[in-house]
Parts: sequence; C-alpha cells; structure tokens
Amino acid sequence: KINGDRLWDSLMEMAKIGPGVAGGNNRQTLTDEDAEGRALFQKWCEEAGCSMGLDEMGNMFARREGTDPDALPVYVGSHLDTQPTGGKYDGVLGVLAGLELVRSLNDLDIKTKHPIVVTNWTNEEGTRFAPAMLSSGVFAGMHEQDWAYGRVDAEGKTFGEELERIGWKGEEKVGDRKMHAFFELHIEQGPILEAEEKDIGVVTHGQGLSWTQVTITGKDAHTGSTPMPMRKNAGLAMARVLELVEEIALSHAPDAVGAAGHIDIYPNSRNVIPGKAVFTVDFRSPQLDVIEDMVARMKEGAKKICADMGCEVEFEKAGGFDPVEFDETCVTAIRNAAERLGYSHRNLVSGAGHDACWINRVAPTAMVMCPCVDGLSHNEAEEISKEWATAGADVLMHAVVETAEI
Amino acid sequence: KINGDRLWDSLMEMAKIGPGVAGGNNRQTLTDEDAEGRALFQKWCEEAGCSMGLDEMGNMFARREGTDPDALPVYVGSHLDTQPTGGKYDGVLGVLAGLELVRSLNDLDIKTKHPIVVTNWTNEEGTRFAPAMLSSGVFAGMHEQDWAYGRVDAEGKTFGEELERIGWKGEEKVGDRKMHAFFELHIEQGPILEAEEKDIGVVTHGQGLSWTQVTITGKDAHTGSTPMPMRKNAGLAMARVLELVEEIALSHAPDAVGAAGHIDIYPNSRNVIPGKAVFTVDFRSPQLDVIEDMVARMKEGAKKICADMGCEVEFEKAGGFDPVEFDETCVTAIRNAAERLGYSHRNLVSGAGHDACWINRVAPTAMVMCPCVDGLSHNEAEEISKEWATAGADVLMHAVVETAEI
Ligand SMILES: NC(=O)NCCC(=O)O
Ligand SMILES: NC(=O)NCCC(=O)O
Repeated sequence: KINGDRLWDSLMEMAKIGPGVAGGNNRQTLTDEDAEGRALFQKWCEEAGCSMGLDEMGNMFARREGTDPDALPVYVGSHLDTQPTGGKYDGVLGVLAGLELVRSLNDLDIKTKHPIVVTNWTNEEGTRFAPAMLSSGVFAGMHEQDWAYGRVDAEGKTFGEELERIGWKGEEKVGDRKMHAFFELHIEQGPILEAEEKDIGVVTHGQGLSWTQVTITGKDAHTGSTPMPMRKNAGLAMARVLELVEEIALSHAPDAVGAAGHIDIYPNSRNVIPGKAVFTVDFRSPQLDVIEDMVARMKEGAKKICADMGCEVEFEKAGGFDPVEFDETCVTAIRNAAERLGYSHRNLVSGAGHDACWINRVAPTAMVMCPCVDGLSHNEAEEISKEWATAGADVLMHAVVETAEI
Repeated sequence: KINGDRLWDSLMEMAKIGPGVAGGNNRQTLTDEDAEGRALFQKWCEEAGCSMGLDEMGNMFARREGTDPDALPVYVGSHLDTQPTGGKYDGVLGVLAGLELVRSLNDLDIKTKHPIVVTNWTNEEGTRFAPAMLSSGVFAGMHEQDWAYGRVDAEGKTFGEELERIGWKGEEKVGDRKMHAFFELHIEQGPILEAEEKDIGVVTHGQGLSWTQVTITGKDAHTGSTPMPMRKNAGLAMARVLELVEEIALSHAPDAVGAAGHIDIYPNSRNVIPGKAVFTVDFRSPQLDVIEDMVARMKEGAKKICADMGCEVEFEKAGGFDPVEFDETCVTAIRNAAERLGYSHRNLVSGAGHDACWINRVAPTAMVMCPCVDGLSHNEAEEISKEWATAGADVLMHAVVETAEI
C-alpha cells in the first residue's frame, strides 16, 4: 500500500503554488506558477531517484529504472496545470500518485522488470490555449507540433513563446517514446461514485467532445438612439444560440451534455449594442453520432437565428476528440487491483477529457477514478478526502506493478 | 455663418488623437489620448483668445469675454471623450463647433454682451467609468463628487486617480458657475433626420435611461462531467434574461428600447460552466413610467428565471436619468435660427443621453442635432458630411449669439 499521508502532504505542498482566491488553485499552463510547480515536481522525482526527461512540448518524464534493459516502460501520470479557478486535485492527484507509487516501491525495495515513468503532460486544461490535452495530443500524433506552438492565449501570446519563456521546452522529440502501457488516476469530476459510495471507478470509456467557436457579427450601434427594428444585436443572437445549445443537449439526455463556458462580446460597452459575440460551445457524449448530430443542429439553428436577425455567423472547430474505449487488459488490471485491495468499485464512463484519451491511441491505456465531493470540479471548492486519494493511488500502484511485473 | 472648412479641419485634426482600428476613434476618458486631445483643444482655445478654466472634475471652460461685466455667460459645448470603438463626431462636433463659433465671431469682429464659454465635459460616454455624463451630472448636483471619484474601471482604477494621473484635475469647485443658458450641438445618432432629409433637429425632449447591473451567481463546474440536472449555468440564465429584455422593450415599441451592451462571464473558460454572469441592461423611453415598468418587469422576470435554475440574482442601479423637457426659450432660439438660415428642420426627441440633459436642471438648455449616415453611432464607421456639420454649427452660432445678445 502507498503512504497516504505522504501523498496528501505533497498535494497540499503543490497547492501552495499558484493559490486561487477561494481555497483552490490558479496555476494555468505556461505561467510562472506552472514553472514553479514543475520545478518542485522535478526536485521530488530526483529525490526519489528518478531521472527527468523533457520533450519539445514541455512534457515531463520521471523515470525509475527497471530490471530488464529491453523492457518498455509503464507510464503513469496526468497534469499539473489547473483551471483559472480550479481545484487542488484535478490532474495533480494523478501526477503525485505516480510519484508516490515510486516512493512506496523505493520504501518497499521493490524492483519492477519494466521501468516506470511518471509523466506531467503540458496544458491539459486547454483554458489558456485551446484545445485541452494539447501536448498528449501532439505526443499521440493527433496535432502537428507547429500548430500547437501557434496556439494563442487571450493576450495574443503563443504556446511556443510561453513554453520557451518559462524555460521548460526540452530537446526530446515529441512522441518518440514507446510505452508498454499508460495508467492515469484522476478525480471523477462527476457525482456517481460519491452517490453510490464506491471507492473506485474503473474507467472503461471516455465520452467524446466537440468544441465549436462561434463568431456572430452584428453591428455596433447606440443603445439609446438606434430604433429596435434597425438593430443587429450580436449579443441577443448569442443568447438565442445559448438557449438552443441547452435544448439540443437535453434532447439527447442523459447521453449528452452541452454548454458555453467561454463568452466574449465586443466592444463590451454599456451603451453599445454588441456588434460581435465570440463563444465556444462544448458538446459531449459517449456516442460519436450524437456529438455529430448536436454540432450539426447547433450550426443549422445558429445560422437561422442569425439570418433572421441580420447577423452573420461563422464556426471554427476549437478542439475535440472521439469517444474512447480503453484497453481491456489495462482496465482489467485496475479492476483486479481494486478487487484484491478490497475497495468497492464500479465501471465508469469518463465525462471529462483526459490525457489518457489521447495516449490510448498509441499505447494500451486505462484510468482509475476516485470520488470527489458533490461531483464538483473546475471550481476552487473541488474537494476529496485523504482516504479517497489513498484508495485511488493504491489501486493505481497495484495495476502499474502488475503490468510492470516484479 | 461659420467657417465650415475650418471646423472640418479641426475635426479631422482631433480625430488623429486616439485613432481607432477601423477609421474611428478610441479616445476614452482619462486616458493619455484624452489628455492629448484636451491639450490640443486648450491650445486652439487660447489661440482664439479664450482663457481656460478647469474644475475638480476636469471639466474645461474656455471663456470669450462679453461686453457686460455683470452678464452671466452663455455656455456651449459637449465632450471630447469617445467610445472604445467610437466615431469622430459623437461629442467632438459639439465642442469644436463651440470653438468654431468663437473663431467666427472673432473673424467677424462681433462682440456679445454675455461672455461665451465653450465647455468640454469629462466622461460623457460612461464606458470606462459608469455612469455616462458623469461630470455634467456632478456639475448639476446629481452626483456627489466623492462618489464620482470612486467610480472604478475594468482594471480597478478609479476616476479620481486617473484624473490626477493625466494631469487634468483643476482647482475650481464643480458646479459653482452660473449659466445664462447652455446649448449643445450633437449628431443625431439615429436615422430620422437623414431619412426625412432634414438639415436640423430641434431637440425638444430627451428620453430617459436606466442602467441596471445584473449579477447572476450559479456554480462553476465541469462542462463534461457535470450532469445536466446538476448544473447552475449562470451564462444560460443570462441568455434567458437577455431574451426577456428584448421582449419587454418590444412590448412598448416604438416608445422604448432595451439591450445589454456589457457582458462578462466568469471564469470564462471553455470547459467550465459559467458560475457568474455580470451584465448591464440599458432601458430607455421618453416616458418615465415606461422605464419604471420595464425595469420592474426585467427584475421580476430575472428573479423567476434564476430561481428556476437554482441561481441567485442581484441588481444594482448603474446609472440613469429621467426624461427631459428642454427650455422653451432656448428651443425657440434654435428653431428660429434654423428658420432664419433657411435650413429644413423638425422637432426631435433625443434617443441618447447628453450633458445637456443634466445641465437642463440648472440652466435654460437646448440642443441642436445634425444628421448622421444610417443613424449609426457608437461605431467607428460613424459618418457625417461637412455640409451637415456646417449647418449644425451655423444654427448653434445663431442661437448662441441671439441668446448672448450683440
Ligand atoms: N479532466 C479535465 O478537466 N480535463 C479538461 C478537458 C476537458 O474539458 O474535459
Ligand atoms: N450621446 C451619447 O452617446 N451619450 C452617451 C450616453 C448614452 O448612452 O446615451
């Protein structure tokens, strides 16, 4: 079993870097805080006897040697970046549980045949630079690296520039590593495990996602002196599309969700009818055809809404991934570990996207989940108990060790 | 008659300061560009023989002496600040037409009994610091000066700090000046004069305004893993209120307008259900009871929408003024001037708020309007012709000279 207290202490220590305003974290990707978090993680890994690799996307790979020089490593990890008003566990738990299992194997003097590599994937959250899971996506060959470097944040800075600036751009070519398997522990970010009082979620599938950036162009005009029939109110057109997004997602309930988390209107002045609205629609479902149907209906409906209001509308795909089915052997390793350790468990479909969803394309992959309070995540109030974290890390270690072979 | 070419040249010269991105201007109040515009105006006024007064709100008063030392001055003017994506004429025309009439009187060697004072009122637009017409409002005793100093922009800077910073805070107590009358020339910002091919609008009334800042609080949560029934989507609640605003305004058509020009959602991340939405609803009508009805219905409706969605809602009055009836003698002076000069004219109700609306409370006041292309304003593409500007300034001069007496 892993050392739950040590894992918890490390989580609390990491949470001191980039504190939020309400008890959570704001340690967004490629900020100074991200650099500080990375340095702490590197220090801990080196103290645990690992050597650190760094690739051109800033992905970090802390390696514990195995006994067989020819055996491919078993990878484990998640991400250290957070939402702007994020929690202390989303991503971080998966990275530090990987570190903790290395520390525990050291304590127990257990050697594995396959090396074990603990990974921190750059920019999982996708808030500062869309899309989410950017660097695991490049690793898995889903995005071109140059395209990733060119992603721009709200201030016009690029991913490539910022990665250089914080000093975490490595020299290793991205995606060159071959993996025996990849395991990721993550908090559920949904309410099922807590409600059913299960310790462990055995993630069999991940739902797919589509992000569509919608740009509606109307006409800036005076809110007072412009007669109602002459208006082209892009803000109002957006409001109607937001209602449509809700309606479409509900029409597929409970197999789909939809919302817009990102909204900007221009010029954003109290007495100017908005001439432009830019927002990102997030549709998800475990079924690809449902996602495709939702996006198509949203586009069609938005075109109609905008045409009726004299506005123009454009769509740009801002990210997405297809629904995922995880590797049966890896999934079984997790289920067996939970069983062996006596933790209650159930199968889960991940509602969120994870680095594991991309890595699943290039290596046998699976995920473990632990509950989180009220299913709340992407909120500073995100909370888990030490017991839940410990159970998740225990199962992770057992699955990893079984796969890495003693 | 005034010198239309000279007026036009001055307009074009001023427009070079704080250029926009699409042919208009971004010379928002209390920015460095505002300071530069003020300095140019002061230079021109001094060259025209005026002395400059400056009060504690940064209001500028360029005085041309009269022949009777005991006669109260006739004031004329508007504002030099612009919207973030504003035009070259909104406000600026009224100030520079005041300057031009002084220059023309100098050319013609005409002395008036009453002094003439050309005024630039600080922060008319209200974009950077709500509410609009802030400093004419303090002048007219409608706001406390300390309250005005404490108004905060989007970056947290206060009006008072920024006024000091740009070096345009005067020592004169605000509102101490007594006025014989006040005249303001402004572009219509609406479509009526152009559509009816009238040269001049004789503004008899101004419609009233109410700004309500609405804050909806839901709950930040993950867009992927939060089941639809568990969501408290403040962005969606906002969308529903925006639809309601439109519906309420249309229910009073054509005697009312409504829109939200300013919208911010939090944390504004693509994969976070918005936990908070803050937006300002702008309702206007020439009838006070209509405004009150619209605000009341919006609040009631928003409360119901939010309650149904598990969100909280709060309202804060962010600005407003009652409908205005301008002074009959001043209005007649404008109508007579248009008549005498042979310009076609009609009565108008101003759709926008103007400094004249506040000054009307402390001095006999009226406004002249000239057409603008497509009624478009608060847009960089705002346009007028030199002939329209000249006609407006001619009428302004005649009304001012008649009132200031030769
Ligand atoms: N786990 C997580 O929050 N990932 C961010 C990508 C997503 O939006 O699902
Ligand atoms: N004239 C003008 O645009 N004033 C700004 C105040 C308003 O919103 O009416």
